[in-house]
Amino acid sequence: MAPRKEQQIFRATLELLAGKGYEGLTVEGVAERSGVNKTTIYRWWPSKAALLAAALVEADLLAMEPPDTGSLRTDLEALVQGVAALLTRPPAADVAVAALGAAVHRPELAAATRRFFADRFAREEAVFDRARRRGELPATADPMLIMDLLAGAVWLRTVFRGLPLDDDFAAKAVSAILDGPS
Amino acid sequence: MAPRKEQQIFRATLELLAGKGYEGLTVEGVAERSGVNKTTIYRWWPSKAALLAAALVEADLLAMEPPDTGSLRTDLEALVQGVAALLTRPPAADVAVAALGAAVHRPELAAATRRFFADRFAREEAVFDRARRRGELPATADPMLIMDLLAGAVWLRTVFRGLPLDDDFAAKAVSAILDGPS
Repeated sequence: MAPRKEQQIFRATLELLAGKGYEGLTVEGVAERSGVNKTTIYRWWPSKAALLAAALVEADLLAMEPPDTGSLRTDLEALVQGVAALLTRPPAADVAVAALGAAVHRPELAAATRRFFADRFAREEAVFDRARRRGELPATADPMLIMDLLAGAVWLRTVFRGLPLDDDFAAKAVSAILDGPS
Repeated sequence: MAPRKEQQIFRATLELLAGKGYEGLTVEGVAERSGVNKTTIYRWWPSKAALLAAALVEADLLAMEPPDTGSLRTDLEALVQGVAALLTRPPAADVAVAALGAAVHRPELAAATRRFFADRFAREEAVFDRARRRGELPATADPMLIMDLLAGAVWLRTVFRGLPLDDDFAAKAVSAILDGPS
């Protein structure tokens, strides 16, 4: 399938999910919204779960490129700001929060969520590799733990607590990891 | 209402939610499962959202008492282990993950989720108050940020990544906060 058409389908899938919830998401609705024939969509993705799984991992709307600012601190701050934007800035936020919330319950989406985070982590590792080469991070440091702490904090603060992020949230969160409590 | 009866209703509410999802949760179902008359339940909680909100904050099944082990490090490790148990050990895990997942999407549950976390944080603050009095934590440290980092990491690792927690996850997560990267 042409990449542009595929992205139209993914965007329609994610927007429908955000607007109507997983129950309201149908391949028929995606066909209508994206202007792509229903049978064409079914040929590529056999179910709405498969379609949503692909959209989560491949949609441009949720894509991220790892920062490369020259230091671990500012790279991590940029990563935190990226997660914050993903979870709080429309339209990506409606989609990301709806998709992750839907995935929590549904075994057929759990694999997609795992792939979404595995794919992001594979990109984030570049930040830690560069930091190690610059001597900013001990070889024994645990990049996945650092990302879980930072990205998890953004999720908890914004989605569960429903609190806004202060302008210095990223700097403070990264400092808590790099500098210890102060 | 008698506390024991109330807890029966809350438990039935949370178990139905975990078993059938928010769509499948009905006051009728809770009445049947708890053995309490439907009109009695409606007299106390006017909707299933109100009932679930009360259950989230008041159910014994999700209750937590803050640890008091004598040091900030072991208190924080105990808090992390408590979150880990809440999110991974049945029956609380099925209920907690289902309730938090359901709340992500639904404005009528967002207030309940905020209260759930605010109530937990009010208890967790005792740990930080004692640590400050013992001189283990600077007065400027940010307890909510520390809890967001730690509890968020458990959520991200277990629910989103779907990965098991190593035995030393709590110790490593707390060390990342108290000792910096190593």
